[in-house]
Amino acid sequence: MEKENSFAQRQKKIYNWMAEEGINLLMLEDTETRRDQNIRWLTGHPGDALLFLSIDKIDKKSADEKADNNGKAILVAWDINLAKIYAAQSGAIISSYNDFNRKPSKAIAAVAKKFGIPVGSKIEIPSVTSYPSFLDFVGELTDFDILCRENGAASEMRRLRSIKDAEEIAIIKKAANITNELINSIEENVKSGKIKTEADAALFIETEARRQGCEGTSFDILAAGADRSYAIHAFPTWTHAPFGGQGLSILDFGVKLGGYCTDVTLTFARDLDPKQEKLVNMVEKAAKLAVSMALNGTQAKDIAAAVDSFFSKSKKKMPHGLGHGIGLQEHEYPVIRNSNENEWVLEPGMIFTIEPGLYDPLLGGCRLENDILITDTSSEILTNARIIHL
Amino acid sequence: MEKENSFAQRQKKIYNWMAEEGINLLMLEDTETRRDQNIRWLTGHPGDALLFLSIDKIDKKSADEKADNNGKAILVAWDINLAKIYAAQSGAIISSYNDFNRKPSKAIAAVAKKFGIPVGSKIEIPSVTSYPSFLDFVGELTDFDILCRENGAASEMRRLRSIKDAEEIAIIKKAANITNELINSIEENVKSGKIKTEADAALFIETEARRQGCEGTSFDILAAGADRSYAIHAFPTWTHAPFGGQGLSILDFGVKLGGYCTDVTLTFARDLDPKQEKLVNMVEKAAKLAVSMALNGTQAKDIAAAVDSFFSKSKKKMPHGLGHGIGLQEHEYPVIRNSNENEWVLEPGMIFTIEPGLYDPLLGGCRLENDILITDTSSEILTNARIIHL
Repeated sequence: MEKENSFAQRQKKIYNWMAEEGINLLMLEDTETRRDQNIRWLTGHPGDALLFLSIDKIDKKSADEKADNNGKAILVAWDINLAKIYAAQSGAIISSYNDFNRKPSKAIAAVAKKFGIPVGSKIEIPSVTSYPSFLDFVGELTDFDILCRENGAASEMRRLRSIKDAEEIAIIKKAANITNELINSIEENVKSGKIKTEADAALFIETEARRQGCEGTSFDILAAGADRSYAIHAFPTWTHAPFGGQGLSILDFGVKLGGYCTDVTLTFARDLDPKQEKLVNMVEKAAKLAVSMALNGTQAKDIAAAVDSFFSKSKKKMPHGLGHGIGLQEHEYPVIRNSNENEWVLEPGMIFTIEPGLYDPLLGGCRLENDILITDTSSEILTNARIIHL
Repeated sequence: MEKENSFAQRQKKIYNWMAEEGINLLMLEDTETRRDQNIRWLTGHPGDALLFLSIDKIDKKSADEKADNNGKAILVAWDINLAKIYAAQSGAIISSYNDFNRKPSKAIAAVAKKFGIPVGSKIEIPSVTSYPSFLDFVGELTDFDILCRENGAASEMRRLRSIKDAEEIAIIKKAANITNELINSIEENVKSGKIKTEADAALFIETEARRQGCEGTSFDILAAGADRSYAIHAFPTWTHAPFGGQGLSILDFGVKLGGYCTDVTLTFARDLDPKQEKLVNMVEKAAKLAVSMALNGTQAKDIAAAVDSFFSKSKKKMPHGLGHGIGLQEHEYPVIRNSNENEWVLEPGMIFTIEPGLYDPLLGGCRLENDILITDTSSEILTNARIIHL
């Protein structure tokens, strides 16, 4: 019942936004080559589907008044057996992708007909639609005004999803607790010698995360022993190489619970030389600095700029962004990056990573990543990733 | 040395194609949201990069004569430490993505300048470039003619990559041998009771594949016990649920060796009722039928149509395509699907899956998937996936 409400609430937000924008039909697509977790966010269905949202009438109101637009959703799923289970509470009509020859343009035409979308209406398609496909859509759907734009539905959903609702915060906190238990067990097992290789660490996480009820991990676990930690993202992601030996070893992982991701990075340090010690200290200080700045109202880019500036005093440069939102995707919004175009301002309900890191082909790499929730007056560090001295 | 040759040979093919098409500069992009293994195919670098190819002069010749166009490659990598290792033999100049503010349009402008690309030249960008991004490129690169098209470089590389060269066939055969050893061990371990859960099966594969030198698995292992095998792709992909119990259990996996993927599916059958027996028999017969048709010169869609027709005689319908090419991606070309637009014709050197399957919410699912190499006069079944009766 609670689930039904949150899917319906989210759909309602989109219906009202559609009315505001004068859009009669909206298409979302999740495919192997381009994932879109908005479909899961709106219906619960985990993927390989099209989702169509259509509004019944257009009730435009000012932002202050409460618009009340209802609509209908059709989920066109590759696997309808799965869709019937996962989208059961979303109120969406479930249809098979095979009915439309697996072609979005065919599906859109059929749905527009079924919903009686008036000729000349605005239909929005995904902002990631390729230019050649866009031309096809426009060519096939000549009766409608086809929109494909950056500042459209995708951007609105990024904005909405950047602020987690109570249900989402609760599930991410639960995922964070599982993550924290894993971190503690991993520390124990590395220290006792039970985890001796990258594979030991990765397989431990894969097994235990699911034992705790997780769907799996948020992304391919990155376990890089001291010989491989110089890479931002080790390749291959894990091997049977030693882990936790002399120098710096990195372990970057997250768990996925009910679709929601955590993302943390631990660094294991053993018998460091003075240069490696310095690298580790700098990363730890950068993490503290960043976390202390992460407050309601702060510009995200200012935090990243402060860390860049701190590193540059020692002539170090971080080769990646400082952090990113987490949620149904392992990388979502806000973006915590030092660039002029980054206009994200922190708000209560945002959950994101802070992950300073430094990498050197000779010294190895060190990254420290935790997940932070912004609250009205402060912040909560949800995870307890740390530098572990062996 | 051998590697250097094959990267150089592949680049040469693209340089000649560019000359034919009158394209001076070609950009490829591999990012988290849109993977493009063409970069690995051309340089060895496994990902998160832009690749620019530029021809020195334009030597157009007819297809019969041998054009001889040379060119330059710049690999703009997110992680240059990795790029220096993996792309070392490709001859590409290696540059950091951070030098261009991580923006493809900035990088393209800088590279065009560095290579002295004449004003008015044709520059091709990825066919998957979104319509809004395409407008940005065109707006920023006003001095050039920007091409973004389906029948361009991406399509040419799909065609080239659909036919594997000797080096690729050798590595895929090696990956297939590892896969076959895994299949045998899995059968043994399920029969002996060592593999009792989906997790046991998945973790066994993850561990053993890497022990045999693989980078990892080709995709998330799908291990679905009898309660979950009705889904085409079980969700979550594997859990701690029982595997190999009464009914039908599906195990779909592949290994990745030096970048190259295998992809097989086994079905485990225990104490079947007559309807389940029938399902299994039909899938086995469909696989045999399809494999027998897979020969040089055959239209791919005809094979898929034959299987669809075979199933429809028993009022069954397969909810997915019959097969797909494998290589650096787990899904590439040719496509073995029954649709009018599918114009792929089988040629020697093509390697693809044949994977008939039937799924029923009550009976469970059965899929049998093997990897086939087309030779001049016949075909070779590289893998030994099978229905395993327990």
